[in-house]
Amino acid sequence: MEEINKEEQTVVSTQNETNQEEVTKTIDQVEGKKPPYKKRKPKPKVARDTQTTQQTRGEGWVSDLKKAHIINEKIHRDRLNPHYKLNLNTAAKLRVTPLGGLGEIGGNMMVIETENEAIIVDVGMSFPDGDMHGVDILIPDFTYIREIKDKIVAVIITHGHEDHIGAMPYLFKEMQFPIYGTSLPLEMIGSKFDEHKMREYRSLFRAIQKRTPIKIGNDFEVEWMHVTHSIIDSSCIAVKTAAGTMIHTGDFKIDHTPIDGFPTDLHRIAHYGEEGVLLLTSDSTNSHSPGFTRTEKTVGPTFDRIFQNAKGRVIMSTFSSNIHRVSQAIEKALFYNRKICVIGRSMEKNLEIAMNLGYIKFPKDQFIEAHEVNKYNDKEVLIVTTGSQGESMSALYRMAIHEHRHIKIKPDDQIILSAKAIPGNEGSVSGIINHLLKAGAKVAYQDYPDIHVSGHAAQEEQKLMLRLVKPKFFLPVHGEYNHALKHGQTGIDCGVLERNVYIMSDGEQIEVTPKYLKKVRTVKSGKVYIDNQLNHKISDDVILDRQTMAKEGVVMIVAQINESDRTLAQKPKVSSFGLVSDKQDKFFSKEIEDLLNIFLENVKPGILKNNKILEDELRKVVRKHCTRKYKKYPMIIPTIFVQ
Amino acid sequence: MEEINKEEQTVVSTQNETNQEEVTKTIDQVEGKKPPYKKRKPKPKVARDTQTTQQTRGEGWVSDLKKAHIINEKIHRDRLNPHYKLNLNTAAKLRVTPLGGLGEIGGNMMVIETENEAIIVDVGMSFPDGDMHGVDILIPDFTYIREIKDKIVAVIITHGHEDHIGAMPYLFKEMQFPIYGTSLPLEMIGSKFDEHKMREYRSLFRAIQKRTPIKIGNDFEVEWMHVTHSIIDSSCIAVKTAAGTMIHTGDFKIDHTPIDGFPTDLHRIAHYGEEGVLLLTSDSTNSHSPGFTRTEKTVGPTFDRIFQNAKGRVIMSTFSSNIHRVSQAIEKALFYNRKICVIGRSMEKNLEIAMNLGYIKFPKDQFIEAHEVNKYNDKEVLIVTTGSQGESMSALYRMAIHEHRHIKIKPDDQIILSAKAIPGNEGSVSGIINHLLKAGAKVAYQDYPDIHVSGHAAQEEQKLMLRLVKPKFFLPVHGEYNHALKHGQTGIDCGVLERNVYIMSDGEQIEVTPKYLKKVRTVKSGKVYIDNQLNHKISDDVILDRQTMAKEGVVMIVAQINESDRTLAQKPKVSSFGLVSDKQDKFFSKEIEDLLNIFLENVKPGILKNNKILEDELRKVVRKHCTRKYKKYPMIIPTIFVQ
Repeated sequence: MEEINKEEQTVVSTQNETNQEEVTKTIDQVEGKKPPYKKRKPKPKVARDTQTTQQTRGEGWVSDLKKAHIINEKIHRDRLNPHYKLNLNTAAKLRVTPLGGLGEIGGNMMVIETENEAIIVDVGMSFPDGDMHGVDILIPDFTYIREIKDKIVAVIITHGHEDHIGAMPYLFKEMQFPIYGTSLPLEMIGSKFDEHKMREYRSLFRAIQKRTPIKIGNDFEVEWMHVTHSIIDSSCIAVKTAAGTMIHTGDFKIDHTPIDGFPTDLHRIAHYGEEGVLLLTSDSTNSHSPGFTRTEKTVGPTFDRIFQNAKGRVIMSTFSSNIHRVSQAIEKALFYNRKICVIGRSMEKNLEIAMNLGYIKFPKDQFIEAHEVNKYNDKEVLIVTTGSQGESMSALYRMAIHEHRHIKIKPDDQIILSAKAIPGNEGSVSGIINHLLKAGAKVAYQDYPDIHVSGHAAQEEQKLMLRLVKPKFFLPVHGEYNHALKHGQTGIDCGVLERNVYIMSDGEQIEVTPKYLKKVRTVKSGKVYIDNQLNHKISDDVILDRQTMAKEGVVMIVAQINESDRTLAQKPKVSSFGLVSDKQDKFFSKEIEDLLNIFLENVKPGILKNNKILEDELRKVVRKHCTRKYKKYPMIIPTIFVQ
Repeated sequence: MEEINKEEQTVVSTQNETNQEEVTKTIDQVEGKKPPYKKRKPKPKVARDTQTTQQTRGEGWVSDLKKAHIINEKIHRDRLNPHYKLNLNTAAKLRVTPLGGLGEIGGNMMVIETENEAIIVDVGMSFPDGDMHGVDILIPDFTYIREIKDKIVAVIITHGHEDHIGAMPYLFKEMQFPIYGTSLPLEMIGSKFDEHKMREYRSLFRAIQKRTPIKIGNDFEVEWMHVTHSIIDSSCIAVKTAAGTMIHTGDFKIDHTPIDGFPTDLHRIAHYGEEGVLLLTSDSTNSHSPGFTRTEKTVGPTFDRIFQNAKGRVIMSTFSSNIHRVSQAIEKALFYNRKICVIGRSMEKNLEIAMNLGYIKFPKDQFIEAHEVNKYNDKEVLIVTTGSQGESMSALYRMAIHEHRHIKIKPDDQIILSAKAIPGNEGSVSGIINHLLKAGAKVAYQDYPDIHVSGHAAQEEQKLMLRLVKPKFFLPVHGEYNHALKHGQTGIDCGVLERNVYIMSDGEQIEVTPKYLKKVRTVKSGKVYIDNQLNHKISDDVILDRQTMAKEGVVMIVAQINESDRTLAQKPKVSSFGLVSDKQDKFFSKEIEDLLNIFLENVKPGILKNNKILEDELRKVVRKHCTRKYKKYPMIIPTIFVQ
């Protein structure tokens, strides 16, 4: 447990004790009507010492420069350490428990708790690794949520990305809470609820007003503050509790010239910073990137150059949630007299949501359906579509391999992949580019200058956030361990005490008060596997089996044994998959048969009475053989009939 | 005159009308004790319309997402346009008149006026061009200051750079006012007053407290807000008047990790931005630089690498006012056990001031005098010196050409030029590098990575300032026309209306009220030439003569004429300089003699009576000859005696 530094406790600003109204008295009032200093040589003043003392008290200036410097150094220390304003005598505690998003990219979910109440911040999904066979998405483990279910007063949403809202239907199937957020993320959750046939839970939506603190439960007062990001209407949140204020940035960048003209609300963040913030949790994704993330507006001129030179259709693919990116392509299409065709379910849905809610406005008559594309001259068409991550089910992929119903990629097509490969997707992105190039198209991708910008804060923006918030404690979130660690260092560079920075892992419960920050327990965390086709959970052992079968193969042995003489009643049936080649099958069967014979000769007679032990023993023997000879640990399924 | 846009007048935020205390009522209080929504299917609520209307009024949320979006768009518009808070009915006006710093780099001086009072912001000097012969420095033309002398209630100083305080002694020789600023710039002015034997004017110093608005005169309330820059203790100022608040950034960068740990005071700037700022005047120097200016801390590791590899003495030169840069070199010296020798008058003076006032602290016993350097092993010495601009009178230059009393550059010396050549100085910087290299030293200069960082805001910082201040009107200052113009465009990109941006020139008087910004008159501006040796003004004609002599040469003719027969009494005395070569001198004299003879033959007799007219006529004849034959317009000085 870390005790507060004594100095911090005693730092009290004289500036804050003085009423500013008093400080700003007219100097002329004190010195007399017309200043004597306009004369060639000013009249000598009263003795300096008296004067200085008096001036320090009320007039706002001193003539002793050394003294002034000491006063100003104190003013600096106080402004950079507003934590003396925190209530050090409070018994109130705040607990923060990340259930996803730490040590990984995606699956963000966090619980913020007081003694009696809790709120959940975001309920996101993540994507499986390549070895999670048949798993479509991952959702956080809700065990801890079940445990504190009765304490929970709300789910709070920062923005509408899948890694922040994607697990909502799975949580709400089990339990429901009011959902607070801005319109776009709520409608995106609503659209998920519709798909999952949970439409009635839309009544739990509470669309908040930004800049307006709202009481949630008895213990929380929450304010949504606008931030820029790669999705419209993102928020940073301030959570006021009796223990102090916590700022959770959500995902953010600080784009001073965003497409919708609504930059990050620096003023509200600064407002809380000035009041004294207990805890900051901030987005670590780009903590290794120096400088400033470029503005979303960078991409417009790039699109313009590409549109100008396009000889045929323009086909633009990006993340379907990046409505501003899509809008920029649509604007170019309108400028260059191209009709717009949106293809891909998520892209169509997100665009429709944004248009319906009024976030973006485009003339509807300029949009055409996929089956209409061929009616137009190639130079009159923009196709906006999904597939920028090389997903093999995406519209763009199907166009590239000539399996799309209406659109086939052809020479003169100009493809724009306005996205970066998410780590792990590099191979599939490279794959789709190969297909597009083979089809003869021109492809502008990430080596094309300014074709994509990130939605996350680089170092200078992270520093700006840290300097605005001036938190006492700092927990870097949203990123792998190395991202969080680097972000922690940036925090220290920006004035957070090293001992007040902690690098969390999922499931760690951190307790914070104005006096200390400490880890108090670890709750169950992890991932639950979801099959998107069935919209339900797949149990862990299924995945383990799939992994074993995929990596090691499987051996099935069916044998009939005569108990009397411990021999095979007939030739056993051996099937193996993923272990030996087809032409080796017979040879392998013979090996197993030989093994069985030796095994039966040596087996203890009693074992033949117990089928389970018998099969286990046989499995061991076969495993030993496969390990020695094939260096493999296949799944071995013996079925033995003793007669 | 520009009228305010009607929309702006009527924009009134509902958010601002509602008391935030009321908004934050507990929802549970309204909805009943234990929320029904934790059950599997929530009970249907009251009819949506009634509910929504009620909720909009007091509970801080609505369930209608479209409506919520409309509310939030209005909140955005209000936050980005806080100018509706300005008093549109005020009759008060603010006038801003730059007397230096526009259309140039340097010589900053600006007058801010109300109807009855005025303050001067900074009184800077600038450097002459190469053709201003014998001019050491330039100061602004004080004609307008004389005109409004009785209105002036104070001089306000943003920081201690020469281009902001360098002309103070020349102004104060003529007239005196109270001087407000922080300790360092005031002490630097004090040091100038001492040199100019004006020590008594130190009594006019009023050392202010940052973050504390101070009433100045009856019409101004001024707050100094800390900004980072290439000199310690710089400030941005807020000037509150009846017409509205003006923010003048002074020179600034936004360094989140400055050497002294005191970053730019974003919070106070944001505070004014939120209140509604009438006018922003902001530093345009680096408005062509994209991204973020690197932190001053970048230079430390560079110094470290150089110190590690230095085989002999390290000699570091930078701008003498950049105390943090000097400090970083001194820290490396202390770390690597080198004694520190500071050479160069301005460097010694500035370091002494900063140490005396307590801005920096170093052990005094680690400093040695120039004459002691040779007592130490070369690897035990750091010399910090002036001359980074290649000034031929500087210590470093004299060391390089072996004319310094104690130090001669030698092989194994490691020179660090931690500075960029100020435009115009490239030649002399290149010159000093040549001398240093010829002396065998190693020189790390601007192609060495991270050896220097700028003190001025690049584009992302300018944007941040604009977004924090959210000014209604924007006047880019401090820079040449192209810098200001680019900065104006950045302002427009950051939400300032195009018609509310104006690119000023020195002498233009701009009138601002919440309703309009317009140019109302032009006052006399320009430069006054100063000879630093005599500390006085050089009149313009002296400079013009010097320019003519330097460019065109001079011809002196002394002739005696007999009035009776209009002939030369004797051979005339012709001296010419800067026109023909020495060996042509005789030939040229003969030419002039011939000219004189012809002139006298043709001259009207009456003219011989009037010496002045005679000399003027002769001057014309000689000028014609020089123009035709030598393509030159020399200064021609005829002296004729008629007898």
